[in-house]
Amino acid sequence: MKTKEDRVKNWLNDNRNRGAKLLQLMVQENSTRGNESGAQAIVIEKCRQLGLDLDIWEINNDELKNHPAFCCDRQSFEGNPNLVAVLKGTGGGKSIILNGHIDVVPVGDEKNWSHDPFSGRIEKGKLFGRGSTDMKGGSAALLLAIESLIETGIKLKGDVIFQSVIEEESGGAGTLAAVLRGYRADGAIIPEPTNMKIFPKQQGSMWFRITVKGRAAHGGTRYEGISAIEKSVRVIERLQQLEKDRNARISDPLFDSIPIPIPINIGKINSGEWPSSVPDLAFIEGRMGVAPDETIPSAKLEMENCLQELNQCDEWFRANPLQIEWFGGRWIPGSLESDHPLMKELSASFQEITGEAPVIEASPWGTDGGILSSVGNTPVVVFGPGITETAHDADEHIELEDLYIASEIIARTLIKWCVVSE
Amino acid sequence: MKTKEDRVKNWLNDNRNRGAKLLQLMVQENSTRGNESGAQAIVIEKCRQLGLDLDIWEINNDELKNHPAFCCDRQSFEGNPNLVAVLKGTGGGKSIILNGHIDVVPVGDEKNWSHDPFSGRIEKGKLFGRGSTDMKGGSAALLLAIESLIETGIKLKGDVIFQSVIEEESGGAGTLAAVLRGYRADGAIIPEPTNMKIFPKQQGSMWFRITVKGRAAHGGTRYEGISAIEKSVRVIERLQQLEKDRNARISDPLFDSIPIPIPINIGKINSGEWPSSVPDLAFIEGRMGVAPDETIPSAKLEMENCLQELNQCDEWFRANPLQIEWFGGRWIPGSLESDHPLMKELSASFQEITGEAPVIEASPWGTDGGILSSVGNTPVVVFGPGITETAHDADEHIELEDLYIASEIIARTLIKWCVVSE
Repeated sequence: MKTKEDRVKNWLNDNRNRGAKLLQLMVQENSTRGNESGAQAIVIEKCRQLGLDLDIWEINNDELKNHPAFCCDRQSFEGNPNLVAVLKGTGGGKSIILNGHIDVVPVGDEKNWSHDPFSGRIEKGKLFGRGSTDMKGGSAALLLAIESLIETGIKLKGDVIFQSVIEEESGGAGTLAAVLRGYRADGAIIPEPTNMKIFPKQQGSMWFRITVKGRAAHGGTRYEGISAIEKSVRVIERLQQLEKDRNARISDPLFDSIPIPIPINIGKINSGEWPSSVPDLAFIEGRMGVAPDETIPSAKLEMENCLQELNQCDEWFRANPLQIEWFGGRWIPGSLESDHPLMKELSASFQEITGEAPVIEASPWGTDGGILSSVGNTPVVVFGPGITETAHDADEHIELEDLYIASEIIARTLIKWCVVSE
Repeated sequence: MKTKEDRVKNWLNDNRNRGAKLLQLMVQENSTRGNESGAQAIVIEKCRQLGLDLDIWEINNDELKNHPAFCCDRQSFEGNPNLVAVLKGTGGGKSIILNGHIDVVPVGDEKNWSHDPFSGRIEKGKLFGRGSTDMKGGSAALLLAIESLIETGIKLKGDVIFQSVIEEESGGAGTLAAVLRGYRADGAIIPEPTNMKIFPKQQGSMWFRITVKGRAAHGGTRYEGISAIEKSVRVIERLQQLEKDRNARISDPLFDSIPIPIPINIGKINSGEWPSSVPDLAFIEGRMGVAPDETIPSAKLEMENCLQELNQCDEWFRANPLQIEWFGGRWIPGSLESDHPLMKELSASFQEITGEAPVIEASPWGTDGGILSSVGNTPVVVFGPGITETAHDADEHIELEDLYIASEIIARTLIKWCVVSE
């Protein structure tokens, strides 16, 4: 007689195409911020077919807005719901949250894509499209894992709480809403694109906007003005130095192979209205990484002090100080001890299935894990099949083979963690 | 019996308020590109009252588009006409074009203005508002000069051809249309804001747009991407070096007191869509100054070669070359010999009225003078009452006293140049 693990393996081998087909449907629905409903509908219908207990609701700003972890400038969530779908356990086992986000970032310059960013095209074992890796592929792996347990008749004692949330890319309001709705568990896996690495620690991050003033003048007498663009170059160089200084302090070996553990990314700059005028205003927007052992407020203070220093040592900035706002996204860092039982079970499942020890690192980006752990008091591990390097990039894609392996590793971890009900 | 010159002086002294009132009405009409009609209507009505021969027409793109000096991306001129208003001479004297533009640049960041940019507010002898200095004040001075001759009964032999054109700030299609309509003369004065200096030479200029490519990535793994913003900083620094090199070659003493005779102004930069993505595209727009003894094509070539060099010496740019477009505005440089009769008459009038020798320099910016001289074969001097430093800036304003003095200098120059018909 076959073991439960073998039954799952065989079923997954025979039903890979279900995972690929599901992911394709999810990717073909553009779910950038404010447009999540189409992709969410695919996920909801899948969960309904699986017979999970569905909880579908629209986030209510009024209920969340005073929570200290709430960070969202979105006016309306109407028509774009959160989803929690529960595979109820028979009782007595440990519960687990399986959390994925349905929102995707914009496609960028469409000319850089070889095909339609929402094609879901499959070629040589890769599935292409915005969100394929970050992180609809991870969510599809979760659903395939749950399906494999149901289809092979394996019943668990602990609850499996699948979540498909909105707003991860903009600060985690979706996961916060789920936590505040009462969804907490003994552990959680978030299958963000980790290249199959296991991340017990997650970098936090937050967005900033720096306003740089200049003085307008005719471009032909530009020496009469002060260019907000030239002044912005000084700010950019100072931020680059700050990034160097902050990263020089990182000693956690989990970051050893990461070139810049906590990057400061300058993602946007806009300045000027007219080619032949000296620009009098510039806006620099970006993302500041926060180390797992740091707090959001202390990181903010460090950048604020850095700009304050620039305000002191530059005559123009003394009279026209740089201003910083923290807006939009903010992801709380997360940290789990490496010997936590969930780490052990997940690592063991990885080793059993792949025959290799997992690579354990700290995540180079924030996830909703910080909210799950700090607000929901739920231990979190981030592990998923997507390719870190293609996230947010043109021609984003995922290796379907990794998706299938991740499904099996997650299914096996559920068997261990939630305990099979005989 | 009073001389003609004294009659003009007395009339102007008694009727200063006419110039201020006219300028105020002109400034109160926002005449940014595409919205010139309201301000133009004020000028047309003034010319009608003065009894000038009016020629009001809308520019026809089809007629101009194949002319080598045509440089305009505007789709429609409907409803925003050009104006030429002629004070017909009795015959036998030299003709003169008095050319002003009615279009103004955008107001920039309105928060930098102390009052409504279109208030036309007068305070302590200054009139404030976008266009007050560049160059509705100059046009008002022209009209006041013409009015002073008419009101004092002075008849001239040569034609005085007053022009109020659109599109100067975007490349001179208005003046080109007037030239091609047949308006040429023995000389021309353009009262751009020269701080009452006389500019026999004018800097040319043109607009460029440089496209800088990057490679997108998630901001948390920004080392996987190539930031179009960081790459743009390299381009900006290279352009700053090019500006230094080009200006080091300028030896014309007319530029002696100008800190940067032919500036390269970076007026706009836009890059990135998302704070936590590495931006994959940046657009840099600006204005390149062209020396009076240079040609537009040779200056273009120098910048193109400079970018080509950057494309060679940077690995990323080798694979993803910088692209440059020359778009929008282009102003042909102009140059008149310092001993040209028009220079002599204008300088003499200046000296007689102010008791001081005029400051003679090269203009730090392009004007429509390049088109008048190179296409219309009309000798051009640029001289006007506006304040160079406040052009295109917040709180743009003009000293009304300068406007009145410029009116008198121009009226006296007309008497000398066009010759009084007894």
